[in-house]
Amino acid sequence: MLPDFAQAISAPLQDFERHLLEASARIERWFRLEWQDHTPPFYASIDLRNAGFKIAPVDTNLFPAGFENLSEDTLPLAVQAAMAAIEKYCADARNLLLIPDPRRRDPRYLRSLRRLSTILRQTGLRVRYGSVDPDVVAPLRIDAGDGEALLVEPVVRRGFRVGLADFDPCSILLNDDLPSGLPAVLDNVHEQVLLPPLHAGWTLRRKSRHFAAYADVARRFARQFDFDPWLITTGFVECDDADLRDDDGVERVALAVERILRQARARYREHGVDERPFAVVKANAGTCGIGVTPVRDAAQVRDASPAEREAMSPGADGRAARGLVVQEGVPTVETVDGGVAEPVVYTIDRYVVGGFYRVHTQRGADENLNAPGMHFVPLPFAASCHLPDRGESVEHAVNRFYVYGVVARLALLAAAVELEQTDPDPSLYG
Amino acid sequence: MLPDFAQAISAPLQDFERHLLEASARIERWFRLEWQDHTPPFYASIDLRNAGFKIAPVDTNLFPAGFENLSEDTLPLAVQAAMAAIEKYCADARNLLLIPDPRRRDPRYLRSLRRLSTILRQTGLRVRYGSVDPDVVAPLRIDAGDGEALLVEPVVRRGFRVGLADFDPCSILLNDDLPSGLPAVLDNVHEQVLLPPLHAGWTLRRKSRHFAAYADVARRFARQFDFDPWLITTGFVECDDADLRDDDGVERVALAVERILRQARARYREHGVDERPFAVVKANAGTCGIGVTPVRDAAQVRDASPAEREAMSPGADGRAARGLVVQEGVPTVETVDGGVAEPVVYTIDRYVVGGFYRVHTQRGADENLNAPGMHFVPLPFAASCHLPDRGESVEHAVNRFYVYGVVARLALLAAAVELEQTDPDPSLYG
Repeated sequence: MLPDFAQAISAPLQDFERHLLEASARIERWFRLEWQDHTPPFYASIDLRNAGFKIAPVDTNLFPAGFENLSEDTLPLAVQAAMAAIEKYCADARNLLLIPDPRRRDPRYLRSLRRLSTILRQTGLRVRYGSVDPDVVAPLRIDAGDGEALLVEPVVRRGFRVGLADFDPCSILLNDDLPSGLPAVLDNVHEQVLLPPLHAGWTLRRKSRHFAAYADVARRFARQFDFDPWLITTGFVECDDADLRDDDGVERVALAVERILRQARARYREHGVDERPFAVVKANAGTCGIGVTPVRDAAQVRDASPAEREAMSPGADGRAARGLVVQEGVPTVETVDGGVAEPVVYTIDRYVVGGFYRVHTQRGADENLNAPGMHFVPLPFAASCHLPDRGESVEHAVNRFYVYGVVARLALLAAAVELEQTDPDPSLYG
Repeated sequence: MLPDFAQAISAPLQDFERHLLEASARIERWFRLEWQDHTPPFYASIDLRNAGFKIAPVDTNLFPAGFENLSEDTLPLAVQAAMAAIEKYCADARNLLLIPDPRRRDPRYLRSLRRLSTILRQTGLRVRYGSVDPDVVAPLRIDAGDGEALLVEPVVRRGFRVGLADFDPCSILLNDDLPSGLPAVLDNVHEQVLLPPLHAGWTLRRKSRHFAAYADVARRFARQFDFDPWLITTGFVECDDADLRDDDGVERVALAVERILRQARARYREHGVDERPFAVVKANAGTCGIGVTPVRDAAQVRDASPAEREAMSPGADGRAARGLVVQEGVPTVETVDGGVAEPVVYTIDRYVVGGFYRVHTQRGADENLNAPGMHFVPLPFAASCHLPDRGESVEHAVNRFYVYGVVARLALLAAAVELEQTDPDPSLYG
């Protein structure tokens, strides 16, 4: 099952793709050198969008779920990458404590956790599940709906270490993006490795900082490989502490939308893109597509009804206080099975280990696809990300996926830089 | 295409397989810790044999060809493993010089080289081919028979470095097992990494040392995981400097065969194996199955005609002076496509990256299959080596391949130990 490109890819984007394919050996060396200086997050999933005139990451998730959607064929790659990562953080690791997202108990998420555990176990780890919720005081058996259950046990603190009652892990892997604050039990953990570090969670992380780090990385990469960084980046404006529930917040966001649309229109003209740009208003510390709204005109913000403003605002969990970010929207030209589609690329350590298309048959090319009704089509990303085929055209899926793997790894590198820049205390997470 | 097991696997071997599958997380950790202490050879291929009552490596090749037989699906694993290896040896490497086997110009070998280069290029390396043959003074274009050609250029020495006229590599990858001596041009190369080190070549390497290192590794592993090491090892006797062309040499080899057969008969009885054992006489510094002869009775050696003795002796290239090794033979119970088959497992760095069955329809279960007329059936080794399925029986291919991957990695670890033990000067290869 390969994607359809509903409209032609523009000549400059085709040139860019061809250019990357020709330079693949140099590009791999460039990444190799960058990974000498920057430590990749343990794992990530990167949402990309291909507009036909630019390809850009729109979300970099440092606590990925969705492992159940990866093709079985790519699991050995994930195991091998996880082996490299574990060796780096804790070479003699025997036990790993996995902290799931406490807000998710759906069978899909439990399948993702099981898949992730399978990968980790095959690197030679015992994996158990822990809860940092102070209300969880006894082991919790979560029914996966297929006869199997997941046992989540209360995390216990002992000095500078955490574990379970009878389990002392070397590493703690967070699959909880911490939108509602740092769990007290994980505060000041010294002797164990927290993956990713606590400041990767939404308590402290801000999308605007990631976009800024990405803009820098993309600029350096574009300079090195001689192309216009516009082809892989999006404009953005941070609206710090803006709240759409007050008029001042509305006006700041409306001005940001105007600025993004004005910039985008100018660049569209410059690049001969005959489309009407749009902007996306997102929570700056958001997760899972909550509060992602496409906007084609600042008036849409100014004239929004209270209900619409509420819809554009970040959701519960006190996220409202953390402001918004307005980003240039990237429509998607890809369709799979007749639905609008966007590629999602998974990484472990510095390696692309798989990916799939997120497909939504009820949403438009400018809308957020991470919404109820979406489905997933696994694709042989990993193979292609590693092995472009210069004998084929850039239109060939193998080659487009190589380009996607490159852009996803630029976002990964940006996340590494972002985590360095925002690190409150390097000694906290070894 | 999965193998047929022509006869049942014995109960103890099934127990052993089941035991390994259950212990897979602990086994992976064991390997992780071993690789902290021992550096795996850059690449290797390991020939295994499954007798139905034991599974053992019979040849560990540190200059593997045959990459063209690996399934395309497993190439991303090879690329990822090669990335890890390159990063270790020369993180900023841009250029790699590959030295092919000068004795092979057949299309099959050229396809193997091309496949290997594809893997290496995708780690971010420029790859060119060099010849260390002093007679090669100008670039040599070798026709691959499919319209493409390979350009092999004379290696040039500059101080403590080697390269091509306009190419300064960081690493030199040998695919030549050096049966006829160390090339002068590679002597005392200080500033570059030679992979594998020169003493891995047959000029210095001896099979008996590898078997001894393997016996130690297998014993340690068996003690750790509580099973009889006989299930994965073979007896062997080194006949140093023995030459079958003189009577003293013949008698020494005949005595060694008697000893191996006597030991094997005793252990067969002990393990309830109702078969007649055989021994194999091999060159101690041999390559590619030359001079591998199965012997069921010492009289076969004593009564051999001069022509038969010649056939049992190592071939040309002065190998005769390097002695012989007599090894317990391992019949194979596997058949693929109606031919006798043995699995061959490929590794890069410490990772299993693929494998295939070597199949011969004209040879018996006790014969060397590495002979004209063989063919190759790629198999999804890599996937299975990483991900056994505890829901399936040990008879399931996925699980048998996991066991093969474990035994192959024990041989790889033995090669690492062997290269440490035989290292003439650690500073030579960084």
